[in-house]
Amino acid sequence: MPVYADPVDGLAVPAKLLQAWTARLVESVGTPPDIAADVAEVLVASDRRGIASHGTARLPNYVALIDAGVMDPAGRPFVDGGRPALQRFDAANGWGHHAGRVAVDAAIAAARELGTATSVVHNSNHYGIAGWYALRASRAGMIGISLSNTSPLVAPTRSRRPMLGTNPIAIAAPAGRFGAFCLDMATSTIPRGRIEVAARRGELLPVGWAIDADGLPATTPEAALGGALHPLGGEEATGGHKGYGLALAVDLLTGVLGGAAFGPNIIGLFSTEAPSDLGQAFIVIDPAAIGTLEAFEARLEGYLEQLIAAPLAPGAPGRVLIHGEPEAEAERRSDERGVVIDAVHARGLRELGERLGVPFEPAEA
Amino acid sequence: MPVYADPVDGLAVPAKLLQAWTARLVESVGTPPDIAADVAEVLVASDRRGIASHGTARLPNYVALIDAGVMDPAGRPFVDGGRPALQRFDAANGWGHHAGRVAVDAAIAAARELGTATSVVHNSNHYGIAGWYALRASRAGMIGISLSNTSPLVAPTRSRRPMLGTNPIAIAAPAGRFGAFCLDMATSTIPRGRIEVAARRGELLPVGWAIDADGLPATTPEAALGGALHPLGGEEATGGHKGYGLALAVDLLTGVLGGAAFGPNIIGLFSTEAPSDLGQAFIVIDPAAIGTLEAFEARLEGYLEQLIAAPLAPGAPGRVLIHGEPEAEAERRSDERGVVIDAVHARGLRELGERLGVPFEPAEA
Repeated sequence: MPVYADPVDGLAVPAKLLQAWTARLVESVGTPPDIAADVAEVLVASDRRGIASHGTARLPNYVALIDAGVMDPAGRPFVDGGRPALQRFDAANGWGHHAGRVAVDAAIAAARELGTATSVVHNSNHYGIAGWYALRASRAGMIGISLSNTSPLVAPTRSRRPMLGTNPIAIAAPAGRFGAFCLDMATSTIPRGRIEVAARRGELLPVGWAIDADGLPATTPEAALGGALHPLGGEEATGGHKGYGLALAVDLLTGVLGGAAFGPNIIGLFSTEAPSDLGQAFIVIDPAAIGTLEAFEARLEGYLEQLIAAPLAPGAPGRVLIHGEPEAEAERRSDERGVVIDAVHARGLRELGERLGVPFEPAEA
Repeated sequence: MPVYADPVDGLAVPAKLLQAWTARLVESVGTPPDIAADVAEVLVASDRRGIASHGTARLPNYVALIDAGVMDPAGRPFVDGGRPALQRFDAANGWGHHAGRVAVDAAIAAARELGTATSVVHNSNHYGIAGWYALRASRAGMIGISLSNTSPLVAPTRSRRPMLGTNPIAIAAPAGRFGAFCLDMATSTIPRGRIEVAARRGELLPVGWAIDADGLPATTPEAALGGALHPLGGEEATGGHKGYGLALAVDLLTGVLGGAAFGPNIIGLFSTEAPSDLGQAFIVIDPAAIGTLEAFEARLEGYLEQLIAAPLAPGAPGRVLIHGEPEAEAERRSDERGVVIDAVHARGLRELGERLGVPFEPAEA
């Protein structure tokens, strides 16, 4: 996920304060405290990691789903099928963040015993950043993979119609002094939010990002927002069919496997028309099953050391990066100076807090 | 993997005959019959599916490894660690195709009991097309994922040096009237073989395929062959860091997890200097653990029907394709008319057969 620069005129809010307020707000709409604590942790983790698009700025959207009666704030996930290493959870149309936390924890516990385990979730809602669940496995000393399907925004190669979500793939593992390797990517070239940023900035788009409503390369953000995103790889000549295949593979392992909605049948992002019925999957592998965690971590750390020392191409803006480094750096900044939120974000939280009787009055960090 | 058109002046060889000859040839260099049968099946499957780059045309390379004493034709894989759902195999520096078949079969058997299972293999050699192992799981009614690390040909984003393999990802699942969904992709924009084809045809390269030795975009095949491939996504602006992350994730799940070689430490493709010590991983998930296989397959089939009916973009060369369709079509053609091999390929097999006392005398199909 792209880490955006802190807004220049932003408000710095201590992360702990933001998280406590978020939990209270989420409770105020009928969410039990333990579920609200998970939601607040995942949303604020996104803000701390510099991914404002998936954090507390989305609270008004979640509350709108609850107000419309299409998401159950008190829904509790339960196991509804499986075998020892593969469990299916019904998220009971509750918060995706809580269902995801419960499901990945179940996979971590089973992997500790069996070596690997998978949890799939159906009847779920948006679960925030995919990487959070992968990192939770990493912090438990394991390799974690986190997948979700999402609303259709991506056109399969050769088509002009959005049929697939930007279906993220996250994978994380403990990596010694690097903390963790954490790849967290949409399977489209860029997420839709990046097009919205280009629209605000008046930028033109490179070929490979998106197509317009007629299926031709979109050169302006406006044309792209009325068309569809390209899968990773862009056009067919540059491997776009691979990104299309990855998006489809994510849907196969989430919506199709778990019996949730999939592909073009998923309703719009945060649409209040009907429940989302999203699917998620968590695959956890315990390296200690076939050696020691220390040896695994030392191998990965050594590999990453080799990568960051690689000779650079002309014009490279800096050394080779490891996936998750920019987010971890943003997290350190946020924990030092507070989470910096922009004016629109702050206004959204203030208005929501006022309406729900949970005033948003953060002290400056 | 790209399916190449049949060579116009090719020799049509019945697949069964080619497979029987391959098994005899592989036996003649000291391989036990059961291992040779696996090798012949996987290599000829590649030829039948139109992927000549990974099939019997590679036999001279494999034999060179055995002649040089860096690959053991009689090496038998054995389990050397794990838990019920995660087993590690030591391939004993034998044929990768046999080790892969044994490892994926072990994962299929364990998944039938536990819901999902993973096998990782170290001390291995090239195992041919990744998709074969994923399809084996699919034919057993399961979702199969097959991963391998390979020799470094891909430069991480921002670098000019090849540090990562084209590390393939294959995923397959049974799909009703479509037979199977089978994505089998290198995590680079294109495989190195595609550059070699461009060199033979005198084509220029689009931006996003490769860089030259200085790290600048390679516009000619010659410059690319002296440089490095781009990861899927191409340059950083079009998501190349995601392809780099996927290549690294494959290595994490194969070489790093299994304790094989990884990244820049892997020797050149078919180098006779030292054993390859490649790593492979097979993840198998049984949809019947959380429902019926029939219901899973019906969902997937319905999804694929929606995709192939999608409205087309201008200039699309045909309808939306499902991953694995071109290969399955090539397979049908090969089984009808024989496997069509080009003159260089045929000469290679004739010379090898003559030298090893297993004459290559295929009847025309």
